[in-house]
Amino acid sequence: LETKLPKVGTTIFTVMSQLAIEHGAVNLGQGFPDFNVPERLIEALDRAMREGKNQYAPMTGIPALRQAISAKTQRCYGYRPDPDAEITVVSGASEAIFDAVAAVVHPGDEVIVLDPCYDCYEPAIDLAGGRAVHVPLDPRTFAPDWNLIRAAVTPKTRLLMINSPHNPSGAMFTVDDIAELTALLRDTGIYLLSDEVYEHIVFDGRVHESVLRYPELRRRAFVVSSFGKTYHCTGWKVGYCIAPAELSTELRKVHQYNTFCTFAPAQWAFAEMIDAEPGHYEQLGAFYEAKRDRFREQLLTTRLKPLPVPGGYFQLVDYSSVSDLDDAAFCRWLTVEKGVAAIPLSPFYESPPTGQRLARLCFAKNEATLDAAIERLQKL
Amino acid sequence: LETKLPKVGTTIFTVMSQLAIEHGAVNLGQGFPDFNVPERLIEALDRAMREGKNQYAPMTGIPALRQAISAKTQRCYGYRPDPDAEITVVSGASEAIFDAVAAVVHPGDEVIVLDPCYDCYEPAIDLAGGRAVHVPLDPRTFAPDWNLIRAAVTPKTRLLMINSPHNPSGAMFTVDDIAELTALLRDTGIYLLSDEVYEHIVFDGRVHESVLRYPELRRRAFVVSSFGKTYHCTGWKVGYCIAPAELSTELRKVHQYNTFCTFAPAQWAFAEMIDAEPGHYEQLGAFYEAKRDRFREQLLTTRLKPLPVPGGYFQLVDYSSVSDLDDAAFCRWLTVEKGVAAIPLSPFYESPPTGQRLARLCFAKNEATLDAAIERLQKL
Ligand SMILES: CSCCC(=O)C(=O)O
Ligand SMILES: CSCCC(=O)C(=O)O
Repeated sequence: LETKLPKVGTTIFTVMSQLAIEHGAVNLGQGFPDFNVPERLIEALDRAMREGKNQYAPMTGIPALRQAISAKTQRCYGYRPDPDAEITVVSGASEAIFDAVAAVVHPGDEVIVLDPCYDCYEPAIDLAGGRAVHVPLDPRTFAPDWNLIRAAVTPKTRLLMINSPHNPSGAMFTVDDIAELTALLRDTGIYLLSDEVYEHIVFDGRVHESVLRYPELRRRAFVVSSFGKTYHCTGWKVGYCIAPAELSTELRKVHQYNTFCTFAPAQWAFAEMIDAEPGHYEQLGAFYEAKRDRFREQLLTTRLKPLPVPGGYFQLVDYSSVSDLDDAAFCRWLTVEKGVAAIPLSPFYESPPTGQRLARLCFAKNEATLDAAIERLQKL
Repeated sequence: LETKLPKVGTTIFTVMSQLAIEHGAVNLGQGFPDFNVPERLIEALDRAMREGKNQYAPMTGIPALRQAISAKTQRCYGYRPDPDAEITVVSGASEAIFDAVAAVVHPGDEVIVLDPCYDCYEPAIDLAGGRAVHVPLDPRTFAPDWNLIRAAVTPKTRLLMINSPHNPSGAMFTVDDIAELTALLRDTGIYLLSDEVYEHIVFDGRVHESVLRYPELRRRAFVVSSFGKTYHCTGWKVGYCIAPAELSTELRKVHQYNTFCTFAPAQWAFAEMIDAEPGHYEQLGAFYEAKRDRFREQLLTTRLKPLPVPGGYFQLVDYSSVSDLDDAAFCRWLTVEKGVAAIPLSPFYESPPTGQRLARLCFAKNEATLDAAIERLQKL
């Protein structure tokens, strides 16, 4: 059996979550909240089931949800995508990414990804017969180096994939990055895939520079988001893609024969929730900012050095004053010996920067969980 | 924009459902029940949400569900797959098919499909860079012609896809078919994908010849099923694949980066339901047999001629004494002018048999729905 994906093993998130369970570690590894979804969402989902909304949803998503996404996009980014032609509801952001890549990447095409990047990007490219071209972000600030990115473009470049707020670092694209990106893509046929699943988790008054704000960018872009991070339900796997009609048509050809449609009762629940409680996502930044601030303060009582966190729900820490292990070994040791599961950055890279001594901690947790972790981290 | 899937348009199921809505037709087209899921399933799902089971499920599915599937497989087919290594829960049978094809079909490979076949098979093959080789089933009985299938095998054949009970016809593989299939595959490296989503909907004392009953077959097979047809919840999109460890490993590499995991609360609900009420799927055949019998009796009062229905929830009808239109035109006319939506068979074929005058009607409906349809069909 000749594997199609020779590089793929078990994802680091699964590996570390299993290790955490085995060793009774506080799990700050895999990114998921340990608090529950808003009550209204549960009630609305329950109601949808009881009303019999349990059969196939439309392939593109139920109209009420696509309309709610459209109106919310208008409120957030000043742009109202056409709910019928430009919005597709799928089974999580990862399916959106998979479908978009499958839809536009032909065998032999190149796709530029910015390392460190989420580990589902490259397998999707490989399965499409494309080749991922890895361009490193700054190893400390995780800012894109536009000269390096420009230099990576060739006539074979079909797609550029970006992610802001960024997993694992929390770094965010600035207005200057948007200007550079726009100039880079102008007069090319390169498509853009913008992974914006942390769009509402931004701090310190920053603005999320969604690609949807920029006509010249969104004209060629698949903008991917999901409800998992926004509504504390990473296990519900409802995501969506906003893209121009022509690109949405191609993405839908794949989605139609991949999962076809997505758990219907949740679609009704999200449609209601988005419309009825815009405050939820509007206040999400403040909600997580308080968690971040508290957690960072606590980290100062440990020998781990927290890096800045502009957005997202991950805290990178520099562990170089604690250990000289590489990051994979360090995170394993931290989990097994010290009882706190963390995620190393090296699996997010094609070639990890030598000597990088960073680990990722998820702070989407109750205070008690974070307190328990800190107590253990203080003993390092 | 050069499309990856030049042959793909909107699936016939969506087209006909939309047409049904526009024209107020009774929708016997797209295959879904119009009655609700068992109450226990709703309650269990609700409980799972309230207990906070809303974060990422394990990539392969929650252990309780994989164990329930394993035990049920033992009860039904006398074979107990390893829940850890051989069972993978995914977002509907269509994702399982997509992942399996992506996992084993390399560019240039050939995949044998038996026409008429469900319309998601070929796009999955195309996206993997393979080529679908279409072998027709008998145009009246929908039995496989093993001489034709044997003749279609080449050194490039990687995979054979079968479906029993069969959509659209309801035809079922016999023990003789299994013997032919076994002989055909023996000493080849050809994999088998067996789509068994209608496994529990079988009539007249027939036995579902699951590939899982046969060690020589299951050794090389992806056996795909789902809960949609069994629990009246086609919109929940929870399916699974049973395959030997080596094949499951490859399928999981794709699944891990496609949807990663599936709506978690439903997994808990199915785990409970399967264990607590085995009677549900044991009695499903009788439940649908009564519907089939009643519907066929009613059809005798119309000018449509019902074909035999060994399994599944579709009734094929010969409309040649009503109309000389081709099947696409007939189904459109039936929907628009006569108020009953049906599905033509031609979209299930690469080359539809000339002069085939068959339409598919779904009888997974309440009596009132079927009565309303019959009243209209009597006017043909
Ligand atoms: C699909 S498990 C990974 C979850 C996640 O987004 C992360 O931890 O980065
Ligand atoms: C995914 S819509 C099609 C439903 C179905 O299985 C059918 O009607 O054949």
